[in-house]
Amino acid sequence: MEKRRLYMDYSATTPVKKEVLDEMMPYFTENFGNASSFHTFGREAKTALDKARGQVANLINAKPNEIYFTAGGTESDNWAIEGVAFAHRSKGNHIITSKIEHHGVLHICEYLEKHHGFEVTYLDVDAEGRVKLDELEKAIKDTTILISIMFANNEIGTIQPIKEIGEIAKKHNVLFHTDAVQAAGNVPIDVKELNVDLMSMSSHKIYGPKGIGALYIKTGTKLHSFVHGGAQERRRRAGTENMPSIVGYGKAAELAKTNMDEHIERLTSLRTKLIDGILEKIPYTRVNGSLEDRLPGNVNFSFEFIEGEGILLMLDMLGIAASSGSACTSGSLDPSHVLMAIGLPHEIAHGSLRLSIGDFTTEDDIDYIIEKLPAVIERLRMMSPLYDAVIKQK
Amino acid sequence: MEKRRLYMDYSATTPVKKEVLDEMMPYFTENFGNASSFHTFGREAKTALDKARGQVANLINAKPNEIYFTAGGTESDNWAIEGVAFAHRSKGNHIITSKIEHHGVLHICEYLEKHHGFEVTYLDVDAEGRVKLDELEKAIKDTTILISIMFANNEIGTIQPIKEIGEIAKKHNVLFHTDAVQAAGNVPIDVKELNVDLMSMSSHKIYGPKGIGALYIKTGTKLHSFVHGGAQERRRRAGTENMPSIVGYGKAAELAKTNMDEHIERLTSLRTKLIDGILEKIPYTRVNGSLEDRLPGNVNFSFEFIEGEGILLMLDMLGIAASSGSACTSGSLDPSHVLMAIGLPHEIAHGSLRLSIGDFTTEDDIDYIIEKLPAVIERLRMMSPLYDAVIKQK
Repeated sequence: MEKRRLYMDYSATTPVKKEVLDEMMPYFTENFGNASSFHTFGREAKTALDKARGQVANLINAKPNEIYFTAGGTESDNWAIEGVAFAHRSKGNHIITSKIEHHGVLHICEYLEKHHGFEVTYLDVDAEGRVKLDELEKAIKDTTILISIMFANNEIGTIQPIKEIGEIAKKHNVLFHTDAVQAAGNVPIDVKELNVDLMSMSSHKIYGPKGIGALYIKTGTKLHSFVHGGAQERRRRAGTENMPSIVGYGKAAELAKTNMDEHIERLTSLRTKLIDGILEKIPYTRVNGSLEDRLPGNVNFSFEFIEGEGILLMLDMLGIAASSGSACTSGSLDPSHVLMAIGLPHEIAHGSLRLSIGDFTTEDDIDYIIEKLPAVIERLRMMSPLYDAVIKQK
Repeated sequence: MEKRRLYMDYSATTPVKKEVLDEMMPYFTENFGNASSFHTFGREAKTALDKARGQVANLINAKPNEIYFTAGGTESDNWAIEGVAFAHRSKGNHIITSKIEHHGVLHICEYLEKHHGFEVTYLDVDAEGRVKLDELEKAIKDTTILISIMFANNEIGTIQPIKEIGEIAKKHNVLFHTDAVQAAGNVPIDVKELNVDLMSMSSHKIYGPKGIGALYIKTGTKLHSFVHGGAQERRRRAGTENMPSIVGYGKAAELAKTNMDEHIERLTSLRTKLIDGILEKIPYTRVNGSLEDRLPGNVNFSFEFIEGEGILLMLDMLGIAASSGSACTSGSLDPSHVLMAIGLPHEIAHGSLRLSIGDFTTEDDIDYIIEKLPAVIERLRMMSPLYDAVIKQK
């Protein structure tokens, strides 16, 4: 019997959809020109570049010339934060972010603190992972130049009150960046309605290729370049345009926009089924993150008394690919900084499981997990001295 | 009759070879896992990542753990220079580079000068584009922390005396970075023989995909990260690993290594034929760059009395894709900074043409150019008042 391959880690990365790959293919071979070249090969590439920029812009209701292609979400985060920090240093050195950001935000902030004289406030979040608006407003000082709060959390799926945060930023004349790597393409975003100045996006979370992303920069926003060199991206992001990937990202963005309603409805339904099924079958389980304001495909459980690593190992043996949190930090033995920030005790934060649902997930897949997971948890709990103590107390 | 498509701009970018694309394909779809993920999909990707790192390392005789994947040559250049600059600031603030570097080096140097208090010396070069070793050594001061000199020039093809530069750097205890974007894969490089601490490389110049490159960092070399975030690339370069492209770059590096001797012999022969044919047929022509120490595929002419743009336009109409210099600066009306640095007068620098030869160039292609180019030059010269004056003097 062939081993089942059930992928439940769409928040880590997604496969490239066939329609996307088909669009990309010619740009590896016959239409391989450098988009900055003067000749026919170059102009063919430039035409495709313009089209893709329009497709990505359309996903978030931006103008095409507000979209800058990067190598991915982390570069976009780094660019937005470092670029604003260095360009607005004469105004101030204070940045506000939250404790539950992706490391693409946290680590550039820490770097700016440690090596470049910036001061960073890391806001607490509530039990569902939401930034507290009153605390945000209180944290703003004369020296504050940037607020960076993620659109939706990669581990627990909670969507932030982005519009309200944007209003606070605008009121205090502070730039607002949001890491929308998990959100852009998975939930509707209209940058014209939100007071967002900078927004990070990624292709490989929405069935486009890896190694390509974008930074939305609202017209008139001042920031330094991050990658300096050639005149690409209107002189703001140097490096030969990654044409096949840009074309693929454009197509993925177009598909995401077109299928948004159906995508959300379908994933939300599967998510509800999975959460309800597991909560019904497995005691001492909690769902992390908001149930109302949540990414459609995100499920995050904590199972008391056991460790996430054991769950992942046993699921992997059953052919189920899941995650304990962010792929970017796997290998670390520390509990998730996100789960700690929403107030989970150390031992419960260690027992977390993220199952992320995507466009290729089926009802049957969810049934399989609801069937298999209880025995996995039960078996691990049987080996747990903590659980043993609980059972004996009964 | 179908229009001829004769690509003579391999220094700008190359098509992806079939063997390379074939290796990449599974990593878009069935093997799409995030290389940092814990599960089977992740481990499959991690295995491919390790293999590719070995292939790229082998191309330059580095150790695999000295290879760090980046989004391309420009990022590698920026990382090496900014990373060393910020990490060694307590030792000094002086960087030495040359006037003929790629803009991926020049512009990050200018940025560090303008915004971060660094001092940069831009060395002159000789008439063939070589850095003068005595001037380099004289430029070193107590505050010098980095020398960055390109391996081979992208416009005129001249290969620098890298080993000698490395010896000077080592003698003075200064780090040495070389931008080998045009060289790595086109000429043999053994980093163990050269005193190179950091070396930038790119995939799309050697028949691999765009959007991927590498920075060689000699074991023990201290520099700041450029992209901060997840734990990828041994915590030195954050961002989800761009697996299909990394796999493709690995294969392209392997092919380049395997075919190196044949590649050099073939391209050098075509280059000689093209140079000899044109010099014989077109008067008032000079070849820019060194004829001895030169990239195998690089040809760079200056045709007196006319402008490069007109040549490119007319060649494009004949189906020949060529360049006046770097694709990264196309659109600029300034003459090439490289041609100015080797001492060409403004009006001659404006009349340059780069024809770069690659693995798909044939003898027939070269014959076609030798047949067509003289009439193009002649026609443009007929419209030139400068040429008119010369002819009348005769």
